[in-house]
Amino acid sequence: MSGFFGCVSRHSAVNDVFYGTDYHSHLGTKRAGMVFWDGTKFVRTIHSLENGYFRNKFEDDLPRFGESKMGVGIISDNESQPVTVTSHLGRFSVVTVSKIENIEELTAELLAEKVHFAELSGSEINPTEMVAVLISHGKSFADGIELVQKKIKGSCSMLVLTDHAIYAARDRFGRTPIIIGKDDKGYVAASESSSFANLGYEYVCELGSGEIVQMSSDGVRRIKEAGCRKQICSFLWVYYGYPSSNYEGINVEGSRYRNGGYMAIRDSELEPDFAAGIPDSGVGHAIGYSNEKGVPYKRPFVKYTPTWPRSFMPQDQTRRDLVAKMKLLPNEEFTKGRKIVLMDDSIVRGTQLKDNVVKLLDAGVEEVHMRIACPPLIFPCRFLNFSVSKSTYDLYTRRIIRDMEGGIENLSNELLAEYADPDSAKHKEMVEIMGKHLQLTSLKFQRLEDLVAAIGLPKEELCTHCWDNSSYVE
Amino acid sequence: MSGFFGCVSRHSAVNDVFYGTDYHSHLGTKRAGMVFWDGTKFVRTIHSLENGYFRNKFEDDLPRFGESKMGVGIISDNESQPVTVTSHLGRFSVVTVSKIENIEELTAELLAEKVHFAELSGSEINPTEMVAVLISHGKSFADGIELVQKKIKGSCSMLVLTDHAIYAARDRFGRTPIIIGKDDKGYVAASESSSFANLGYEYVCELGSGEIVQMSSDGVRRIKEAGCRKQICSFLWVYYGYPSSNYEGINVEGSRYRNGGYMAIRDSELEPDFAAGIPDSGVGHAIGYSNEKGVPYKRPFVKYTPTWPRSFMPQDQTRRDLVAKMKLLPNEEFTKGRKIVLMDDSIVRGTQLKDNVVKLLDAGVEEVHMRIACPPLIFPCRFLNFSVSKSTYDLYTRRIIRDMEGGIENLSNELLAEYADPDSAKHKEMVEIMGKHLQLTSLKFQRLEDLVAAIGLPKEELCTHCWDNSSYVE
Amino acid sequence: MSGFFGCVSRHSAVNDVFYGTDYHSHLGTKRAGMVFWDGTKFVRTIHSLENGYFRNKFEDDLPRFGESKMGVGIISDNESQPVTVTSHLGRFSVVTVSKIENIEELTAELLAEKVHFAELSGSEINPTEMVAVLISHGKSFADGIELVQKKIKGSCSMLVLTDHAIYAARDRFGRTPIIIGKDDKGYVAASESSSFANLGYEYVCELGSGEIVQMSSDGVRRIKEAGCRKQICSFLWVYYGYPSSNYEGINVEGSRYRNGGYMAIRDSELEPDFAAGIPDSGVGHAIGYSNEKGVPYKRPFVKYTPTWPRSFMPQDQTRRDLVAKMKLLPNEEFTKGRKIVLMDDSIVRGTQLKDNVVKLLDAGVEEVHMRIACPPLIFPCRFLNFSVSKSTYDLYTRRIIRDMEGGIENLSNELLAEYADPDSAKHKEMVEIMGKHLQLTSLKFQRLEDLVAAIGLPKEELCTHCWDNSSYVE
Amino acid sequence: MSGFFGCVSRHSAVNDVFYGTDYHSHLGTKRAGMVFWDGTKFVRTIHSLENGYFRNKFEDDLPRFGESKMGVGIISDNESQPVTVTSHLGRFSVVTVSKIENIEELTAELLAEKVHFAELSGSEINPTEMVAVLISHGKSFADGIELVQKKIKGSCSMLVLTDHAIYAARDRFGRTPIIIGKDDKGYVAASESSSFANLGYEYVCELGSGEIVQMSSDGVRRIKEAGCRKQICSFLWVYYGYPSSNYEGINVEGSRYRNGGYMAIRDSELEPDFAAGIPDSGVGHAIGYSNEKGVPYKRPFVKYTPTWPRSFMPQDQTRRDLVAKMKLLPNEEFTKGRKIVLMDDSIVRGTQLKDNVVKLLDAGVEEVHMRIACPPLIFPCRFLNFSVSKSTYDLYTRRIIRDMEGGIENLSNELLAEYADPDSAKHKEMVEIMGKHLQLTSLKFQRLEDLVAAIGLPKEELCTHCWDNSSYVE
Repeated sequence: MSGFFGCVSRHSAVNDVFYGTDYHSHLGTKRAGMVFWDGTKFVRTIHSLENGYFRNKFEDDLPRFGESKMGVGIISDNESQPVTVTSHLGRFSVVTVSKIENIEELTAELLAEKVHFAELSGSEINPTEMVAVLISHGKSFADGIELVQKKIKGSCSMLVLTDHAIYAARDRFGRTPIIIGKDDKGYVAASESSSFANLGYEYVCELGSGEIVQMSSDGVRRIKEAGCRKQICSFLWVYYGYPSSNYEGINVEGSRYRNGGYMAIRDSELEPDFAAGIPDSGVGHAIGYSNEKGVPYKRPFVKYTPTWPRSFMPQDQTRRDLVAKMKLLPNEEFTKGRKIVLMDDSIVRGTQLKDNVVKLLDAGVEEVHMRIACPPLIFPCRFLNFSVSKSTYDLYTRRIIRDMEGGIENLSNELLAEYADPDSAKHKEMVEIMGKHLQLTSLKFQRLEDLVAAIGLPKEELCTHCWDNSSYVE
Repeated sequence: MSGFFGCVSRHSAVNDVFYGTDYHSHLGTKRAGMVFWDGTKFVRTIHSLENGYFRNKFEDDLPRFGESKMGVGIISDNESQPVTVTSHLGRFSVVTVSKIENIEELTAELLAEKVHFAELSGSEINPTEMVAVLISHGKSFADGIELVQKKIKGSCSMLVLTDHAIYAARDRFGRTPIIIGKDDKGYVAASESSSFANLGYEYVCELGSGEIVQMSSDGVRRIKEAGCRKQICSFLWVYYGYPSSNYEGINVEGSRYRNGGYMAIRDSELEPDFAAGIPDSGVGHAIGYSNEKGVPYKRPFVKYTPTWPRSFMPQDQTRRDLVAKMKLLPNEEFTKGRKIVLMDDSIVRGTQLKDNVVKLLDAGVEEVHMRIACPPLIFPCRFLNFSVSKSTYDLYTRRIIRDMEGGIENLSNELLAEYADPDSAKHKEMVEIMGKHLQLTSLKFQRLEDLVAAIGLPKEELCTHCWDNSSYVE
Repeated sequence: MSGFFGCVSRHSAVNDVFYGTDYHSHLGTKRAGMVFWDGTKFVRTIHSLENGYFRNKFEDDLPRFGESKMGVGIISDNESQPVTVTSHLGRFSVVTVSKIENIEELTAELLAEKVHFAELSGSEINPTEMVAVLISHGKSFADGIELVQKKIKGSCSMLVLTDHAIYAARDRFGRTPIIIGKDDKGYVAASESSSFANLGYEYVCELGSGEIVQMSSDGVRRIKEAGCRKQICSFLWVYYGYPSSNYEGINVEGSRYRNGGYMAIRDSELEPDFAAGIPDSGVGHAIGYSNEKGVPYKRPFVKYTPTWPRSFMPQDQTRRDLVAKMKLLPNEEFTKGRKIVLMDDSIVRGTQLKDNVVKLLDAGVEEVHMRIACPPLIFPCRFLNFSVSKSTYDLYTRRIIRDMEGGIENLSNELLAEYADPDSAKHKEMVEIMGKHLQLTSLKFQRLEDLVAAIGLPKEELCTHCWDNSSYVE
Repeated sequence: MSGFFGCVSRHSAVNDVFYGTDYHSHLGTKRAGMVFWDGTKFVRTIHSLENGYFRNKFEDDLPRFGESKMGVGIISDNESQPVTVTSHLGRFSVVTVSKIENIEELTAELLAEKVHFAELSGSEINPTEMVAVLISHGKSFADGIELVQKKIKGSCSMLVLTDHAIYAARDRFGRTPIIIGKDDKGYVAASESSSFANLGYEYVCELGSGEIVQMSSDGVRRIKEAGCRKQICSFLWVYYGYPSSNYEGINVEGSRYRNGGYMAIRDSELEPDFAAGIPDSGVGHAIGYSNEKGVPYKRPFVKYTPTWPRSFMPQDQTRRDLVAKMKLLPNEEFTKGRKIVLMDDSIVRGTQLKDNVVKLLDAGVEEVHMRIACPPLIFPCRFLNFSVSKSTYDLYTRRIIRDMEGGIENLSNELLAEYADPDSAKHKEMVEIMGKHLQLTSLKFQRLEDLVAAIGLPKEELCTHCWDNSSYVE
């Protein structure tokens, strides 16, 4: 995932872009950047986030941006951004939340036309530069952005900073959000509406699928209408989104409370001592469970936020294990001899969950009833840079299915669909195997229909690809 | 406050002192240091924490410590530590959790004897160097440490690293804790037992008042018996302590649940929509309230931990206000039109609480019923470096009392005792004035007897000085 | 000016590119960069040199380059380099010593063809990216490099690093040098041959005007013959070049000794106490003067090299003045009452010279006979990024001429030619005015014919544009 | 060696102490520090110089010193300085240029009196803290400083910053200099008078042996008369001193010219092509030789000052070799087939000289006539921290003598005296062996009587210990 924040104002936009981008730090841990148009030139800085936080890294850069009235910032889990280019449309900068499945084909096509690329992410073409190059091939910014949406397979929401305005453009099927806010001096566009409140912005609207707007300090002008098909990522509510954010008018924390509540209803015969969540993302679901079921909410784990603030993922496995080991402190007062319902958002690789269960068992827990806030992840995401899933078999669920199917890796979608069906024998057996492997007293996954109900949008407006492989591609 | 961690081992102690000290980061935000005896020399590093976290600051120093088997670390809200000196006892290093009320008298006395001081905290004598100098005037380490306890007024717990052992010595009346732990390779001494679990240490014992032990990798030898009078700081359970720590066998999180529960019992007629706590320290109290009263626990505020991890207190007021403004994100889903019971640990200056209440009101809350987890703070702490109280009138309660008494600053203890009595007319009027000033629908403070019951120790074993001025000095 | 160094080897080239580039530090003070092909990808780093030296800035980057066998480095007074692009020719990196007079026209032409530019130097198109884009429009690297030489007005020598070889290409009229060296493991190409000796490389050849070669560890292959017209910059011998460098087989220090010697011959009647030079570039000329005339060489000024090593030019005028003031220490032993012949390489702005003369007068010098090692600079350089001459009237000579001509700025070339003629009345008057203004006992400039003789190349093979406006453009 | 600079002024002293201390950078390469009395407190910073220059390291600290009117700075080759202590005399800071031979005895004596030491240099007692502690045992600053001079064996010049004045005190026998300067706002005291000119200070006087003065912005008051015995270090003129410095009224550069001149006179039959010096310290001697003998002065070596500014000595031998290899660039124009007289200041270890000779021979020199500007170093210095001589056999001369005497290490002073006599057979044989070992065409050392004449002070006022073992100890 990644997240961006842009601002056009009649006053300086520098502080707002700085703090607004910082409020997207939960969406990425690798790199970040900001770019401003200061009235005469573009000023850009990019830093790695691997050994520091956004604010620490960019604080010293602020004087360089002067009193700029327009700028955009990005927290990125992938390539260096923003990308700034000079083109026949003039000079402009781009930030994206994107995944381009066909980047190799597009690269070959453009190189054959003697187009060149300047930015590199390691030895790869920088996807955001690809977007910038495609824009520069349009007759206008609107035309260029439409060209991007037409050419790429995958998903791309973006902000484009020019010397006269910021263009905000949501991806073709609305998989990732763009929210517009305003105060009395200008406008902002962000991935997360939670970034508005403390900066004094109020909600104006959300862009629709494929919609393009041009923002200046005077107003927001629609330059392309929204399309009629939308499939917003369900995982925003399950895991990615910040508790105080809303998408499509639906609050993240509220949906988690409802989601935990629905799981509690299906646990009518269970009598735990209390409900608990694995910090940070399991907490909302667990509070919902506790409130619905009328059992206490307690904390057998506390995250040591003073110095382990983020669930960041160091590249190096040794350090990754260390972070997993160190960040949660068990509290024996609420483990020894206890029967706990423990909630987590999802099972991706399965390794962190396993470590946490072992830590609880070592601390003397008697029963761990694990409840996962969404169905098993069976189909790797094709639309977002879901941080960990480099290959299908990074997914715990797929490794279990492969083993159940005798090690065969190439499984038909029909067979996988059977595993996805919570009422099938194969699904039940799969969950049972997982539960044993993870040393759990019991294990349940949320049912897709309950998750959809907890979110509250019609099923067809949600991307549920990773659970049931049912999303638009074209 | 401050916190320390020391380790003697048959293997390298470097990583354990590094991570163990880091787990005391919630106790101080100004400076930190570590010192090791590497078998031939003392290696010491000290850094400011004002623009970074302990681990970031000290990571690059680790190779300098080699495979040292003994070392101590400190997170300090005050002076530079550790202090290393060479003396007739040999070379040694000291870390302290201390407040020396009579430092000026002691300095004058020693200077007259042609003693010199080398370390400076700003333009003051470094209190930890004072401790080191007093130790060096003893005939032995034990004798020197006893001299410290005899000479100073205030409180001083300490670890002393020598070339042969670590001496751990708790302050005369046991106001601050020292917990001993062990694994199969050696021993540790810490301010917080929460630092043990993830490093693989198990609880051995707590030192008693004035007790001194000598720790080597072979064992812990008592060299001075504990005294019979103890008054441990109650505020450790209310605010300072980490949720998974125990002192005198009593868990912090558990005591907060009980404390919130007692407040709920006294709120029988109130019917709020839900209970909530101001992160981080209000959360435990609020969960206890919610569980006891049977109303949901919800989060109208979420702390942006990815980049605002600590409740740190920058020196500069502008930045302090900014931190206060930015770290908590309100969630309108749980504010608009809601009736909330909101818990906080205490009211010190009152400014942060006021800001948070205004933020909730701006977000549309209908009723805020504020519940404070301890009685009003009336008497400035004389035993710890309570971070904010530079003067009596930094305390919100004292400013209110002064105003009620017509601006007179020098009030008798009898009069103050009346304000401290929750059943007196003056106390009730005082709380009513505070509630109005803070724009609260209702305001209640915990009663001291309920707080004492929630902690669970006999009243005479607790220091309750800041509420009722009833603690030992001599 | 700027300078580059490239290496292809059968062993690691990393250290040699690092130290070899460092030995070009006298040619630029703004930015530097290195790029390596490590066998699978290009690894590039760029740093500002404004607050540090090349080696300090790049030392920490070395591990990132691994054991790469091919790489190039650049010290640049202008844009960020190297520029790396991906194109239909594959991926490649470029460093240049260049000045592109028609960059705006070329930019407009390319933007109209929907070409985009990604790198920015401030708000300008990066000239080295322009070179890279033009190369990428060729059918091959050779074709692309020829396109650069055909399209640009000005001058451009370059190294192009690809995944299979380094291309070295000297500018069309040979204004800036490229020297090829070798050892038993591979080949190097450099701006300064002085970089060879300590790295163990020996001289192979110099490229001719417009010549292109392809270097691999197996050998150097000519892919374009040298042109027949050459005009190498005379200023390399006067000021830019390092004393131990040779160009066209002629040593820099040796030419300076001869040059000072010729000046001494024209000073037959003068009887100074000794000769001295303004460090660093006046020293060689002064030694030559002393040796020829048989008067002692002495040092009334010593440069404080321990901490003022470079004649660097901070952007900020206050700091620039400070550097000028601090770096030279006067020695009263050799100033008080002395008659000094003082040599400097040239007069550009005139401000530093003025400050130095004042410093000598303050230190009690009786007579300062100033000798400038080249004729007055009248025509701003069109072929190199001569560091200071942003405008014609940055040149001290031109300001004097303007004043002599009643403030008229647009002077005909005929009139300027008169001032350039050392035997004209106008020239003599001009020099007299300068001498008075600079408070000199006497002032003489080197005559162009003597300078040409001191260098030792035929006049037509030297660019003498800045003195007599007589160089090839097409 | 080390060097200090102190300033008391009616205006801010911060910039002057900063630049004045920086001008002592040639005297030390390990550590540096500054301390100011800002009117209410002492503000001190200390940095390592091992990877950066004084100005770079301390620039960011300047704002912390505010507008302080008194301060001192030190460049140190040894311990951390300044040392600040609080004592019965008040608070004060000390910087020293010192060597304390009997530091272990003094430490034992003081520890027995229950004195403690706080600063550590590695695992040693910090010598400057020893000085500070001794001062604090005096009845007054004057008394304390006299106690230092009485107690220590070795040498100690110092500046003592208090809250009311700076005390400057030269060592007992005047081995290291302290020069007093003034401008219209205040007074400075420095090790090098070369630091005065560019800061606008003029020479007032030099302190005599053991003299103590108290400097305030109003004037300089003598509080202890100079002693009658003086032996200033001759090596200041040979090597350590900056060319534009004077000691005892005698200029360094001038003495080097005379010294080279005396060597030329003794070389009447030699007919070299030219004279040259090994930069930086051989240059002055070589210019003197050239001027006296009437042969040209030329530069077969140029030091690459842009990035190798200092003759610094990294701890690590690999890096030390690298520095030696890289910093001097040979110029074949002045090596191939040439007969050179080459001057260097002294032979300490012999390794650098050997490397440089090899480099010249590799570059084709035909004859190298080496001339060393002082006699062979036979007796290790007891009074300064002469940077390299950790043991007697670090000295090249002593290793040669040991080999000549069959490997016996413990040689009588009588025997060594024979080697020191330039007219003895043993001396001549020794020099011949050295010349062969170093591959020199010829080798000559300066004679002590000529060196003394070149300096110009009576022999008995110079410390010549390292050559003839004839200096005062008591």
